[in-house]
Amino acid sequence: MAHHRSDVIAHAVALLDTHGLAALTMRRLGAELDVQPSAIYHHFANKQALLAAVADEILARGARPREADEWPDQLREVCSELRHAMLACTDGADVVATVWAFGLGAAAPVVEMEKVLADAEVPEELVPVASRTLVHYVFGHAFEEQTARQAVRLGAVERSLESLPDFDLGLDLVIDGLRARLA
Amino acid sequence: MAHHRSDVIAHAVALLDTHGLAALTMRRLGAELDVQPSAIYHHFANKQALLAAVADEILARGARPREADEWPDQLREVCSELRHAMLACTDGADVVATVWAFGLGAAAPVVEMEKVLADAEVPEELVPVASRTLVHYVFGHAFEEQTARQAVRLGAVERSLESLPDFDLGLDLVIDGLRARLA
Repeated sequence: MAHHRSDVIAHAVALLDTHGLAALTMRRLGAELDVQPSAIYHHFANKQALLAAVADEILARGARPREADEWPDQLREVCSELRHAMLACTDGADVVATVWAFGLGAAAPVVEMEKVLADAEVPEELVPVASRTLVHYVFGHAFEEQTARQAVRLGAVERSLESLPDFDLGLDLVIDGLRARLA
Repeated sequence: MAHHRSDVIAHAVALLDTHGLAALTMRRLGAELDVQPSAIYHHFANKQALLAAVADEILARGARPREADEWPDQLREVCSELRHAMLACTDGADVVATVWAFGLGAAAPVVEMEKVLADAEVPEELVPVASRTLVHYVFGHAFEEQTARQAVRLGAVERSLESLPDFDLGLDLVIDGLRARLA
């Protein structure tokens, strides 16, 4: 049975969401689609390429309308969308941060933040620093929140979820640092 | 053969460093120590407890002397030590961030930053926000750097390591945000 690339990606996201990152293998994905692993490799050269497509699909599914006019709020919109997109899929933070580290995808939030910063006339040398500091903060925060929630749900740990740090307060601290540079 | 708890931890760190997080199982650790898995469970109730001990050992091995007098430099010392400790062991960032998320260990850097911030008379409500924003930034940055370096070394991806963002510049942005709140 032949499958379109988009079908394979949709099944990969479903497999990830249901069983977690450790279960997302080319072999298992082939078995669930009732095809040989070679049929998966027809669409994706390797596991990394599959993960990249999965990460971009996770981000695409989390897309929200843009409403903000000022750069601090525009950055908040991008960071909040990224956070919620990752949290919406099991191990989403791990997958998106990994693909970003591979340099193979998940670049849309950083590209958009770089445009917001450039349009706000942030000094050129500060643009990559600020966009990457923000994305690292979002990844670090989402990884803690998702890892904690998933482990508690599985009964693996007993941590109180009320102690999770507030996302917006930390984000504002980074944005204030950027604002101080522009003053 | 009986093993002390510290021996088991040392072997677990070596196993992690040589073969990565996926290889660190109670079964494999028992096999390498030539004991039944039950001998490992004698020291650690479960995999999460073992990981917590491994994370704390990774941090302990990375300990550096403290030299700074001012709070921004004191925060930089803690964050830099945390970063280098995690980078010194394969998958160290993943393990330390996971254990922190579990609430089972790896708390020393946050505890120390909270003391630095309190001593600097940072407003009480800002102390947890600042310490957690800093630790999330460090985790996010170290995860990208380590994931990228390991994947390139294994030949899994071809990303240029020169494009890794500068750690200190991003850290300064967060510290500037904190400084702006104190002004």
